[in-house]
Amino acid sequence: MLIKSLLAINNTINSLEDIKNWIEYRNRCVQVCVDRTSFLSLANWCIDENGSLRHISGHFFSIEGIKVRTDYGAVSCWTQPIINQPEIGFLGILTKEFDGVLYFLMQAKIEPGNINCVQISPTLQATKSNYRQVHHGKQPRYLEYFVNALPEQILLDQLQSEQGSRFLRKRNRNIIIKIKDDIEINDDFRWMTLGQIKELMRYNNLVNMDTRTVLSGLNISNYISPVDDMTKMSPLGAGLILSTVTNHCYRSMEEHLSWLSTLKSKYDLLVDKFSIKDMEDWQILSDEIVRKDEQYFKVIGVKVTISSREVTSWCQPLIQPMQQGLCAFIIKKIYGVYHFLVQAKLECGNFDVMELAPSVQCLTGNIYLTDGMKPPFVDYVLNIPSERIVYDALQSEEGGRFFKEQNRNMIIEADDAFPIELPECYTWMTLGQMYKFLVFNNYLNIQSRSLISALKYSEWV
Amino acid sequence: MLIKSLLAINNTINSLEDIKNWIEYRNRCVQVCVDRTSFLSLANWCIDENGSLRHISGHFFSIEGIKVRTDYGAVSCWTQPIINQPEIGFLGILTKEFDGVLYFLMQAKIEPGNINCVQISPTLQATKSNYRQVHHGKQPRYLEYFVNALPEQILLDQLQSEQGSRFLRKRNRNIIIKIKDDIEINDDFRWMTLGQIKELMRYNNLVNMDTRTVLSGLNISNYISPVDDMTKMSPLGAGLILSTVTNHCYRSMEEHLSWLSTLKSKYDLLVDKFSIKDMEDWQILSDEIVRKDEQYFKVIGVKVTISSREVTSWCQPLIQPMQQGLCAFIIKKIYGVYHFLVQAKLECGNFDVMELAPSVQCLTGNIYLTDGMKPPFVDYVLNIPSERIVYDALQSEEGGRFFKEQNRNMIIEADDAFPIELPECYTWMTLGQMYKFLVFNNYLNIQSRSLISALKYSEWV
Repeated sequence: MLIKSLLAINNTINSLEDIKNWIEYRNRCVQVCVDRTSFLSLANWCIDENGSLRHISGHFFSIEGIKVRTDYGAVSCWTQPIINQPEIGFLGILTKEFDGVLYFLMQAKIEPGNINCVQISPTLQATKSNYRQVHHGKQPRYLEYFVNALPEQILLDQLQSEQGSRFLRKRNRNIIIKIKDDIEINDDFRWMTLGQIKELMRYNNLVNMDTRTVLSGLNISNYISPVDDMTKMSPLGAGLILSTVTNHCYRSMEEHLSWLSTLKSKYDLLVDKFSIKDMEDWQILSDEIVRKDEQYFKVIGVKVTISSREVTSWCQPLIQPMQQGLCAFIIKKIYGVYHFLVQAKLECGNFDVMELAPSVQCLTGNIYLTDGMKPPFVDYVLNIPSERIVYDALQSEEGGRFFKEQNRNMIIEADDAFPIELPECYTWMTLGQMYKFLVFNNYLNIQSRSLISALKYSEWV
Repeated sequence: MLIKSLLAINNTINSLEDIKNWIEYRNRCVQVCVDRTSFLSLANWCIDENGSLRHISGHFFSIEGIKVRTDYGAVSCWTQPIINQPEIGFLGILTKEFDGVLYFLMQAKIEPGNINCVQISPTLQATKSNYRQVHHGKQPRYLEYFVNALPEQILLDQLQSEQGSRFLRKRNRNIIIKIKDDIEINDDFRWMTLGQIKELMRYNNLVNMDTRTVLSGLNISNYISPVDDMTKMSPLGAGLILSTVTNHCYRSMEEHLSWLSTLKSKYDLLVDKFSIKDMEDWQILSDEIVRKDEQYFKVIGVKVTISSREVTSWCQPLIQPMQQGLCAFIIKKIYGVYHFLVQAKLECGNFDVMELAPSVQCLTGNIYLTDGMKPPFVDYVLNIPSERIVYDALQSEEGGRFFKEQNRNMIIEADDAFPIELPECYTWMTLGQMYKFLVFNNYLNIQSRSLISALKYSEWV
């Protein structure tokens, strides 16, 4: 039923056109104003003696300063603000079978930082503060299905990381449940197939990051059954399916684990709290916390006003990036099996020192040149002939925390001349191996998961 | 060759008697003086403005204060000193095959906190400070074999946690390598079979914690071959082997992972640095940091003098427990397969909120009664008839940090009446499932691993 959902684009409850029109309509019906506001006027938020931005309830998230020391990379010590939200939220998708096809209940959700105001989001997106009703708001819709889910209803239930350069050890519970009851569908929600959601990921900034990370955990190969019509898969799709099930791997799981143990032991990551007010490279202005050289990102205060049938308004800080980034997987057939070029990457907010990142994960523009070196493979990815591009779209980071942040997401197939031998922090993994890591927490980073979620296993275009 | 090593107790390079005599002889040849010393006289250590004990080099470890907040357990907020050593050390065992049997190169090592001065230790026990020669000492013996190990030499290579109530997110690299070269065997080292080491674990405080955690990662079922003589296994041993390979599990891996995601999401763990000088329950005396009610543990300063052929002397802090503890696994046949009663336990220094702990892990004495409740199953374990005891020995914590700390390690087989339904934080796992978790970091805690290492799979006594 999952494979059928992957393959069903047409003859579905809602057509792809319906869904696109619905999002467009929701966008027309709503007006979202995001106005820059000085920190002093940021209602319910305050700056403490360390320059940290905190909600007066003590809940939600805060922006705090950290000092990072590491022997990984070109810069051995720096200070930066980071989002601290030491609680595990829900990112949940509710599914149900109709006529043998699994449908996902998706939400048209507005976030202040979204480039398209409305993006396709999980059924439930709730922080612990949210669902404990710290802000005296309504209980999030459908929460009770997730809180009361029985073991047999759970298709997926994992703790997964957020962006390691922006969040301090943040994780969310990624959960997919399957229900049999009839449920009331609120206006903000629509049933979609997996194939439709993946098709919508081909558009820029339409499917939000939370949806992408939750769906990335669905290991398609667990659901293949003899009745599924695999002829609808493209040669590439069939090759990717093979990559999830094969034992013909360039390196064994034991070798990957040993490689990771070596790297995590070799590179130190020391993160200590550090007052933003004492940072030499950063300054706290009336309405932003920004580096003196204006690089990387800044923290801004905004007042958000959403007007549809009723008007809602609140203030919050957001992280605004200074430029776009690039996240790309290079794939290549080794022993006739697709392997993904995976990078062990240290980021300051990582829960476990290093996570498995895409082949290329960097800012675009000139900032990544601080040590006079470009990261490996950047030029190769950016100059790839178009016929080798498997996937290419701009995708947003979470609009509840990031202001119009988008990264170019690419999957490209390397040519035969691309070397199999790789630098120290890089290796080749099959999709099956990546899924094995994905099941356990804090191995694949969110950028990797975003790209994995875009794999269609078939081509209709 | 590993199974042969498990079964080989006699007709080996060194007999069991040889090994015991060798340890006894080493104990006679050496004199270890551990004298309580005031912190002011603790050479090369100082107390900083927060009451933290630090080595003047800035390396090794420090004793720092933390404030813990959690909604798990009876106490929601407390302060305590904890060992901070934010680097990953080596715990390495070198192995080699002789006549088709795998031998482990074990060291007779003295640690100041050891109850028996000399305990059987891994080939290599080195902190990063050690092997970077911060103390200008000699390079640890055999280090180069581990640093230069090739992928095909590695039998096991995992990052594993230390005691979560005493260490702040500490991990070590547990590694076993197999070499073919002839190597020089220093007087402090002997070749032993796996069976011999496990036999020695039946004695109190003879095999050190580092050896036990490294050996716990060896999943015996990966090494079974048709030539192995399984008839040497006892019915219990054969049952345990079955438990490593079976698919007849009370709960699936997916269910266990979902159960862990639920618990890790439900319970918060917030750990912040907190000055020991500001702790209300603790006091810094001239020669110890101790709770006013003298419970749990205290930090002491010691001067260590080891006299054998030459005299070595140094000062360091140690953690001294106020009483013994109990670590016990309850096992029970479910669907005809041995299952282990596993507990998801939150400890303040845990890397990932909760780790999988033994069925019972608590202090003995009256301290665990603070909330008026005993932990589940304690009385059941302590009152078990002797014929249901699979394993029972006193085992030491690491003598480089802990002063004469020992815990009673037990494995017991429950009777038929023992309930299968368990409280929220408890579940049943097969040995195979525990090994699956063990491969990935920070799932099984060190107390669980210590018990797993004691499984003999056979009985000779």
